[in-house]
Amino acid sequence: MALTDTNSWTGIREELLRRIHDRVWEPGAQIPHEADLAEEFGCARTTVNRALRDLAESGLVIRKRRAGTRVALNPPQRATLTIPIIREEVEALGKTYRHSLLERDYQPVPPMLHGVFYASLGDDVLYLKTLHFADDRPYAFEERYINLDTVPEARQRKFEVSSANEWLVHNAPYSRGDLSFSALNANEETARILDCTPGTALFAMERITWTGDAPITNVKLIFAPGYRMRSHI
Amino acid sequence: MALTDTNSWTGIREELLRRIHDRVWEPGAQIPHEADLAEEFGCARTTVNRALRDLAESGLVIRKRRAGTRVALNPPQRATLTIPIIREEVEALGKTYRHSLLERDYQPVPPMLHGVFYASLGDDVLYLKTLHFADDRPYAFEERYINLDTVPEARQRKFEVSSANEWLVHNAPYSRGDLSFSALNANEETARILDCTPGTALFAMERITWTGDAPITNVKLIFAPGYRMRSHI
Repeated sequence: MALTDTNSWTGIREELLRRIHDRVWEPGAQIPHEADLAEEFGCARTTVNRALRDLAESGLVIRKRRAGTRVALNPPQRATLTIPIIREEVEALGKTYRHSLLERDYQPVPPMLHGVFYASLGDDVLYLKTLHFADDRPYAFEERYINLDTVPEARQRKFEVSSANEWLVHNAPYSRGDLSFSALNANEETARILDCTPGTALFAMERITWTGDAPITNVKLIFAPGYRMRSHI
Repeated sequence: MALTDTNSWTGIREELLRRIHDRVWEPGAQIPHEADLAEEFGCARTTVNRALRDLAESGLVIRKRRAGTRVALNPPQRATLTIPIIREEVEALGKTYRHSLLERDYQPVPPMLHGVFYASLGDDVLYLKTLHFADDRPYAFEERYINLDTVPEARQRKFEVSSANEWLVHNAPYSRGDLSFSALNANEETARILDCTPGTALFAMERITWTGDAPITNVKLIFAPGYRMRSHI
């Protein structure tokens, strides 16, 4: 307790977090009333309330009107997920990276993105097909749409030196993104591009990133056979 | 600035975070020297240092000995990842959940877990095969090893009423977990169990959870065709 900064709700939150992590308060256990905690910490009840609200928003405690506050049984853990620069991912494997731009053209917003790229419905979007290599073997096949309303500078880029993936990470910072992961059987085109047999199970990731309410890009990455995505909680 | 609690490093961190998120300091930009920030906040330089160290550990700023501190270009975003109770996941889809225990026996530690379940090398581990259903259709096929050194109570459980997944979430809280995601082609057994054609691309997740240094369980989940895992950053 000596180190708790009870002047701030963040200080109180740190101490509450410590008690949850150290299992002073076990999963599912009721925690003391706000008023009792305020007394213990020698702070205002509103300060304890602010800290508890924050923990509730993160899913670490469950607050019920009459039943008080409990430690969550199955708190969401947070995993670090970044939008990788594929060049860096390949180089981290000790392999040599290069990419090849297979297609670059302007297209109307494709039907699957109606309602997403709404801002540019009248406009064209930039469509790119890129193949990423690791040591001259296909690593991932990328299909991407870029919203030119949000990133008009993309018109001037050829994406031959820097891939769109790398250029966007540096030049079009996102505030949020929706990701989905799935498995698919290689079709004829994908099999040819990724140098595998049609039907091979491939790991795919789809991602839309936004800056505020404006969509930046929609990308589908299909990885070569054997790809494994790792994470920690 | 009025709301910054400059008495604590967490207060300082909140304000630095705000400036990064609001792009007062843009990605890649150099941020003021520690001494200048300490002066601005009217706090000790060590307090600023503690806050910056925390931001550097989260990958939000990059500190270089001579070059000072910069805002990261591609900061890792954190996604919420939980160990789902499959029953709840299925029910959230508006479907009826049930599970069926296909196998339950004691086995020596399998070779792939040597070096992980080291604590129980002499011992047997509990091996379970479970099929999860959504509206009477196969949803996910689960193969699981439970470390009986860590969770001896599992010996007494049949896992017929509550699945091992649900029982462990409630009774064997984990402190960390390693996850991997991949795609695989259904083999004969998996195809039969998940009621699909051999060769179908399936999404698979492997997970090991730990409490401190003690492994709790290793699980491999293979989802029925069409499964999509979603996440947000």
